[in-house]
Amino acid sequence: MQIITLDTGAREVLIDITPRVAEVVAASQVKAGLCHLWCYHTTAALTINENADPDVKTDLLMALERIVGYDWPYQHAEDNSPAHVKSSLLGCQLTIPVNGGKLELGRWQGIIFAEFDGPRQGRRVSVSIINSGG
Amino acid sequence: MQIITLDTGAREVLIDITPRVAEVVAASQVKAGLCHLWCYHTTAALTINENADPDVKTDLLMALERIVGYDWPYQHAEDNSPAHVKSSLLGCQLTIPVNGGKLELGRWQGIIFAEFDGPRQGRRVSVSIINSGG
Amino acid sequence: MQIITLDTGAREVLIDITPRVAEVVAASQVKAGLCHLWCYHTTAALTINENADPDVKTDLLMALERIVGYDWPYQHAEDNSPAHVKSSLLGCQLTIPVNGGKLELGRWQGIIFAEFDGPRQGRRVSVSIINSGG
Repeated sequence: MQIITLDTGAREVLIDITPRVAEVVAASQVKAGLCHLWCYHTTAALTINENADPDVKTDLLMALERIVGYDWPYQHAEDNSPAHVKSSLLGCQLTIPVNGGKLELGRWQGIIFAEFDGPRQGRRVSVSIINSGG
Repeated sequence: MQIITLDTGAREVLIDITPRVAEVVAASQVKAGLCHLWCYHTTAALTINENADPDVKTDLLMALERIVGYDWPYQHAEDNSPAHVKSSLLGCQLTIPVNGGKLELGRWQGIIFAEFDGPRQGRRVSVSIINSGG
Repeated sequence: MQIITLDTGAREVLIDITPRVAEVVAASQVKAGLCHLWCYHTTAALTINENADPDVKTDLLMALERIVGYDWPYQHAEDNSPAHVKSSLLGCQLTIPVNGGKLELGRWQGIIFAEFDGPRQGRRVSVSIINSGG
């Protein structure tokens, strides 16, 4: 298991971590199997979406802002309940196929770390590689 | 890793792919482990829900249409931003137990490929089987 | 594969099952790998969120109630369509790293079984441990 650490520069930001995960997969020398990612935080998430046009990330944040209201009657005192809700909606884990020694992503897919309660230093994602021996 | 290919016949449609995944599991001859599914597209998704009453699928699409507005101020030019958002809400991956050589699904559970930007030809889902040796 | 069984005491309730999953991981004696959880039901879900302040759970249920309307024109006759939608939004599966013989959770993370159509007896979650040999 390897840990990727990242700093986030805004309250809400989507960061493409595909190259950093790809490095861990390459270093593992596993040819076929699964790559599992885990986000250790309850106000952040992991998701897959388009990494070609940056407007897709902008639209995803805007849509989540409309889906999860900021002015709802939350009881949690830290003023970050919408971030907790968004974390559960997107999820904090991903499992991605490894094929031919590489992440098996679709043409437009990137791995996105979603910060919903930043800026923060030292956000962490673990990467575990399972060798299927295939 | 095996690839399931499917064509989708409408802009939004939910397709039960359980039988096709079950075929791959049977052919693998793995008795116990995990079956991992990956959708290669950022305007489609994979989810588990009831496959008995087709109204559940209809209701799920209707609800997502209300949750993710079509008239919001999206910036992505392809006019399919709601599809990208829905893809992240449901997710593009599933891991399902394999037990006794079969998919370990609940009584009402089916594996659903969710098309949000169709109709499309050649949508792809990969199936990877991990043998736990159990 | 082990099965965790639980009864839910309300129509909607979030139950922390972390200690019960931790027991299964400990009994497996696996030091490094993955712990996979599967919920067998289409009106319940599994999610990760904060288990320190119980208000976070209250806020998550309240937010989901606002995100998925009860008075929308659902067709499914059992009057539980919002529960089906919430199940797909949060998802019915989780894969969590195992490291040093323990669940590798963040400081505030707990494993939550989400009931959306209770009260029910005998809700089931399977736990599968994959040994990565690491």
